[in-house]
Amino acid sequence: MNALEKLHKKNTFKKFICIGLDTDVDKMPDSLKSHSHPVFEFNREIINATKDYAAAYKFNFAFYEKDGTSGFQTLLNSIRLIPEDILIIGDAKRGDIGNTSKMYAKSVFEHFKCDAITINPYMGEDSVKPFLEFSDKLNFILALTSNPGANDIEKLSLEDGSFLYQKVIDNVKSWNKNNNCGIVFGATKSDELKDNLNRIASLPILLPGIGAQGGSLEEIIGILKNRKPTNFLINVSRGIIYKSKSNDFAEAARAEILSYNNRIIELFN
Amino acid sequence: MNALEKLHKKNTFKKFICIGLDTDVDKMPDSLKSHSHPVFEFNREIINATKDYAAAYKFNFAFYEKDGTSGFQTLLNSIRLIPEDILIIGDAKRGDIGNTSKMYAKSVFEHFKCDAITINPYMGEDSVKPFLEFSDKLNFILALTSNPGANDIEKLSLEDGSFLYQKVIDNVKSWNKNNNCGIVFGATKSDELKDNLNRIASLPILLPGIGAQGGSLEEIIGILKNRKPTNFLINVSRGIIYKSKSNDFAEAARAEILSYNNRIIELFN
Repeated sequence: MNALEKLHKKNTFKKFICIGLDTDVDKMPDSLKSHSHPVFEFNREIINATKDYAAAYKFNFAFYEKDGTSGFQTLLNSIRLIPEDILIIGDAKRGDIGNTSKMYAKSVFEHFKCDAITINPYMGEDSVKPFLEFSDKLNFILALTSNPGANDIEKLSLEDGSFLYQKVIDNVKSWNKNNNCGIVFGATKSDELKDNLNRIASLPILLPGIGAQGGSLEEIIGILKNRKPTNFLINVSRGIIYKSKSNDFAEAARAEILSYNNRIIELFN
Repeated sequence: MNALEKLHKKNTFKKFICIGLDTDVDKMPDSLKSHSHPVFEFNREIINATKDYAAAYKFNFAFYEKDGTSGFQTLLNSIRLIPEDILIIGDAKRGDIGNTSKMYAKSVFEHFKCDAITINPYMGEDSVKPFLEFSDKLNFILALTSNPGANDIEKLSLEDGSFLYQKVIDNVKSWNKNNNCGIVFGATKSDELKDNLNRIASLPILLPGIGAQGGSLEEIIGILKNRKPTNFLINVSRGIIYKSKSNDFAEAARAEILSYNNRIIELFN
């Protein structure tokens, strides 16, 4: 099953939530902190509790890289816990000159065996292309991100009156020869999402920003509910994995993703 | 000695070349390939042979990440070989929402103990800021890169008639509260470098693209020779470390950096 098939299959089963494993020792229950591998143990419990309800898991590479070699080992060990039929996104936001992007693609797709990656498009087509050559993977390219700084560069107005991020979306469509591109669009930017549905067309959308960053699930589903195919993923990281800071964190995460799924199904009806 | 002092000190001693350690087992002499840690051994020999002539070393993280945990260990071990007074650049091209960039900064500056980093500015100020808070480090932010794809996004024309990369340079100057920002400017873009010297003002410039990518040393020095302070770094990766593919690769690398330094000193006179 390639990455796009994994995404579509999950959506067919009414699973739309991607759980972001931005795992941080400082935010987990005290009882886990004394564990020999607290981040792995936290991830293991979260994944076990939520794997029947998650459409995807997104690993934020930064939270593992900060611990260097041991962090990378934890990342690899955690990725290995994800069931075969669930999409794994390497949230690495990579992008460099061609021969370097090729090495990043080897890292995320071959070494860490992720199904998908997030890519920064600033350096242009030849920086993105080595990722796109992995035709069975999914490449979510940053369009309009969820953070305040999205206004600084991504929302600059171009000479033809469009915004930079809109040009990026057009570029992504032209780069999508292998039908393995998607975009990242911040769930905090619902007005812009609404205005760009035609432009995005059938590109899969990864939407971070619900929960801790303030995006509204109701607004986003209201905009996406008439879109077919429903090839989108709503990412929630802190809002699910740190729903409880006590020993019941895994149960609380399960209850939270179930609640998200139920709210989405209601909003679709 | 903070990162900017390291840079200035080296330039005072007429050392302007940053050696890029984009180390790839496929490109090293056959005799090293059977070594138990070929990448580390290659780096060790290159560093030993060139450390008296290099202004800086730049580690391209991609070439280490592709091997996951063992690659990160090699990266850390190689970084530890660099003498204390030589600038170490983590060429990682990171950038993400604030709480994530903070983790990337911890990785590159605290775990790997680099003096400097390359940063992708696409996500705007709050994605760059966590790096800038490390006031003794140097943050080289991508402006106009050396690759063909630089035309796709970085050279888009904005509504005020300027190019996107020029707006990025202006932003970098406004973000530079701690006097720890620089820019990356491709050495393959000499016309644009010439046209933007006033805009760049006193920001340190990291210039990749000489050698394998086709940038001309003569053109670049011709443009920079009247600039004061001479706070720039010319990066050469493949052109130095793979100058010879035989057992004399380290001697060949030393001869090549010496030749670069001599040519630059001549061009300055």
